[in-house]
Amino acid sequence: MPESAREEMAVLLGVDHVLTAPEDRLGRASGLSYLDLLRRRGQGDFPVPDAVVLPADPEQVQGVLEICARYDVGVVPFGGGTSVVGGVSALRGSKDAVVTLDLARLDRLVSVDPVSRIAVLQAGVRGPDAERLLGAYGFTLGHVPQSFERATIGGFAATRSAGQASAGYGRFEDMVSGVRLATPRGEWRLGVAPASAAGPDLRQLAVGSEGALGVITEVAVRVRPVPLVRHYTGYVLDGWERGSAAVRTLAQHRVPADVIRLSDVDETEVSLSLNAGWKTSALRRYLDTRGVLEPCLLIVGFEGQSTREVSARRRETGRLLKKAGALRLGRTLGESWRRGRFSGPRQRDALLDNGVCVETLETAAHWSKLSQLRDEVRDALTKSLGSPIVMCHVSHAYEMGASLYFTVLTARDSDDPIGQWERAKRAACEAIDGLGTISHHHAVGVDHASYLEAEIGTLGIDVLRAAKAAVDPTGILNPGKLLT
Amino acid sequence: MPESAREEMAVLLGVDHVLTAPEDRLGRASGLSYLDLLRRRGQGDFPVPDAVVLPADPEQVQGVLEICARYDVGVVPFGGGTSVVGGVSALRGSKDAVVTLDLARLDRLVSVDPVSRIAVLQAGVRGPDAERLLGAYGFTLGHVPQSFERATIGGFAATRSAGQASAGYGRFEDMVSGVRLATPRGEWRLGVAPASAAGPDLRQLAVGSEGALGVITEVAVRVRPVPLVRHYTGYVLDGWERGSAAVRTLAQHRVPADVIRLSDVDETEVSLSLNAGWKTSALRRYLDTRGVLEPCLLIVGFEGQSTREVSARRRETGRLLKKAGALRLGRTLGESWRRGRFSGPRQRDALLDNGVCVETLETAAHWSKLSQLRDEVRDALTKSLGSPIVMCHVSHAYEMGASLYFTVLTARDSDDPIGQWERAKRAACEAIDGLGTISHHHAVGVDHASYLEAEIGTLGIDVLRAAKAAVDPTGILNPGKLLT
Repeated sequence: MPESAREEMAVLLGVDHVLTAPEDRLGRASGLSYLDLLRRRGQGDFPVPDAVVLPADPEQVQGVLEICARYDVGVVPFGGGTSVVGGVSALRGSKDAVVTLDLARLDRLVSVDPVSRIAVLQAGVRGPDAERLLGAYGFTLGHVPQSFERATIGGFAATRSAGQASAGYGRFEDMVSGVRLATPRGEWRLGVAPASAAGPDLRQLAVGSEGALGVITEVAVRVRPVPLVRHYTGYVLDGWERGSAAVRTLAQHRVPADVIRLSDVDETEVSLSLNAGWKTSALRRYLDTRGVLEPCLLIVGFEGQSTREVSARRRETGRLLKKAGALRLGRTLGESWRRGRFSGPRQRDALLDNGVCVETLETAAHWSKLSQLRDEVRDALTKSLGSPIVMCHVSHAYEMGASLYFTVLTARDSDDPIGQWERAKRAACEAIDGLGTISHHHAVGVDHASYLEAEIGTLGIDVLRAAKAAVDPTGILNPGKLLT
Repeated sequence: MPESAREEMAVLLGVDHVLTAPEDRLGRASGLSYLDLLRRRGQGDFPVPDAVVLPADPEQVQGVLEICARYDVGVVPFGGGTSVVGGVSALRGSKDAVVTLDLARLDRLVSVDPVSRIAVLQAGVRGPDAERLLGAYGFTLGHVPQSFERATIGGFAATRSAGQASAGYGRFEDMVSGVRLATPRGEWRLGVAPASAAGPDLRQLAVGSEGALGVITEVAVRVRPVPLVRHYTGYVLDGWERGSAAVRTLAQHRVPADVIRLSDVDETEVSLSLNAGWKTSALRRYLDTRGVLEPCLLIVGFEGQSTREVSARRRETGRLLKKAGALRLGRTLGESWRRGRFSGPRQRDALLDNGVCVETLETAAHWSKLSQLRDEVRDALTKSLGSPIVMCHVSHAYEMGASLYFTVLTARDSDDPIGQWERAKRAACEAIDGLGTISHHHAVGVDHASYLEAEIGTLGIDVLRAAKAAVDPTGILNPGKLLT
């Protein structure tokens, strides 16, 4: 990186906010995929940025881009660093130098419009801080992906994140009312109304742009009153087909739950047996007496303003589930899931220590293709990995279809651990092609970039490239992500 | 238009499907705005296409574009011809010739996936035909804009249409699962899953593209079971502020109505007094006894599968409305509105015959700006037109805001009727700028094109231009629409 570029950054941001020490650069060099973690444990190399810059506000972000454009330095926007698809890797593409632009200092709640239920949050605000800041006004975002504890508002928007309560609160893009982006060609603001027919919805181009079309600096989000009543319940259904049909029934009805999550029999067995507090054997005996051979655990969660309102939705949901053959297991199981719902990544670290290859992947498809998609991805992973444990759950359900979230565990190939997973991932992606989307909520990043053309067409890629050239003519923004 | 181009079209489509007779070309030369109708009545000129072509299927549409690209002929896609913003005007831009591409023969239901509740309809299917075709499978689209009787599936998608039941069924873009477009660079298909994080949502670029980024030939839409129970009720609230607050309460709650429509006091007075079947004076006496000084009529409609389910939503809505100060007027008024809801355009023809200047315009804003927006648009129209009747209603309500739909009536300036409305429209658009969107559901077309940059920024315009250049390098698609 040219010394004069570093100096200009230091003048703009203050010398304390341009970091070049190895530990600072290493700390923001990659995300949290299994391969990222393996590489951090010494398996293979990974690129490291030449510097980390920490602007204080949208204007300074804009200033950083101007300096980078002048010196032709690549810029990797960095929020919580929780990407599992290589979205924050410090690739430099055709550039000689690359900086990681850490948005941590953009941590403010800018404004709240309680009448319109819109809040403007800066991009670097993390999930829990967003809830704390909004909570002071009686509001919540209700966006709780598994990465909630670390991930940021800007990251949610840049990746089209989906939270565990998406059935009730929607995906993150449904919450986005407006966006403010810094681009090499200047600031770009979008979103003046709750809905519009003023041409294509360019907010939906900014949302999901993964740092390649601009650095999101502020997001105007829809907020809702903090729920006063929460009720999470566990149900069980016998077999995947019956379970997914029950979830479809819920998703296609008008009285929705806020959380709908169905585990297949493999995930159910593992999660029940892992859950130490649970009298697994008593539950198992109960299921046996009821003749449930392939238990699939269903978590249904409700959040609302009053017991009356929540109860009405619970009753309606219970009625539909009973008709669909579900057995109610009760609240303890539901609340247990709710308490543990952000713990997946921590469990993964422990497994990694013990020589396990452990990774997740996800997709989504229309209902009529969902079981075929699950079968084909499972088959592909099994063929590639030998005899892995493959668990699957429906994490998000819509009227027209649902997502599938797979967790894969197998003994790590100590000779070629990277290649082992790369081959399995490729097999899974090829199984998805033609049946579902290459990513339902993890985004494209580096890992899915070569599969994007199959999904959006050559013209789709050309349109994205053209849009990028319009806002980022020299291609400094997040090289190698989204578009290869 | 080059004779050889016409001949190639005739070979491709059959000689009967390339129309050059004056009446055929005139019949598809413009839409249904007040100025369109004035021009058709001899006030001023309007452009006429050199030919009208009627392809039979998506492949023939693609073929027409290839011929037009080779001969550098402009192409105006034409569905129901109900644009009120000049969207189907036969402008030729920089081209020597222009054809209108009438999609009337693309009138098929291509497929139904009852499990995923997705149907693929060709672009030329009109509203009532869509309902008939889907009804045979027990499904409905539920999309009922005022143009329903003539407008087409392709037009709904191209313009981001919003139907009168949008509170329950969503805007048209919410129903779009996938699109198939013909472009000069080949076919483009989008939409493989109910939701995706595979980069920006390019479907939301196709939806609202107004024929400028491709000719939509097929749309995969979300369908729902035909409602078995319908219940429309009239309420009244005293004054605009109380009325819009009540609508906001409904929109921000979880138990929605399917139709929510609030008239301001001016619209309420006119619509009650126009409605001959209504014992207006009895109603007026009732309102007087209840002390309602500024009656604002609220229509609330419910559609569902069972009386039980609809009643539950009605009860909840009734409870909220009572709390908001609404007086229930009963079902007759609601049903009367439902029966007459497509008649606006026909009433307009009669008014035009009687020397009236009559036009509508619409916008949307966040709740906190809605009343200011209504005031400023009314003031602008009144200042420009002298003493018009300006009526307004909230036609679509969302959590974060609502649309405003204005109807303007005034004596036509017989010397300069075109200029009279052009000035009023400009004043209204300038009042909207900065407060709301230039169009909530009428689209951009020609009439709003010069206001788009204020809404989406110079970068937004550049991105759209770049996207257009990627799919339509020589700019043959709908010249002069969306982008100036």
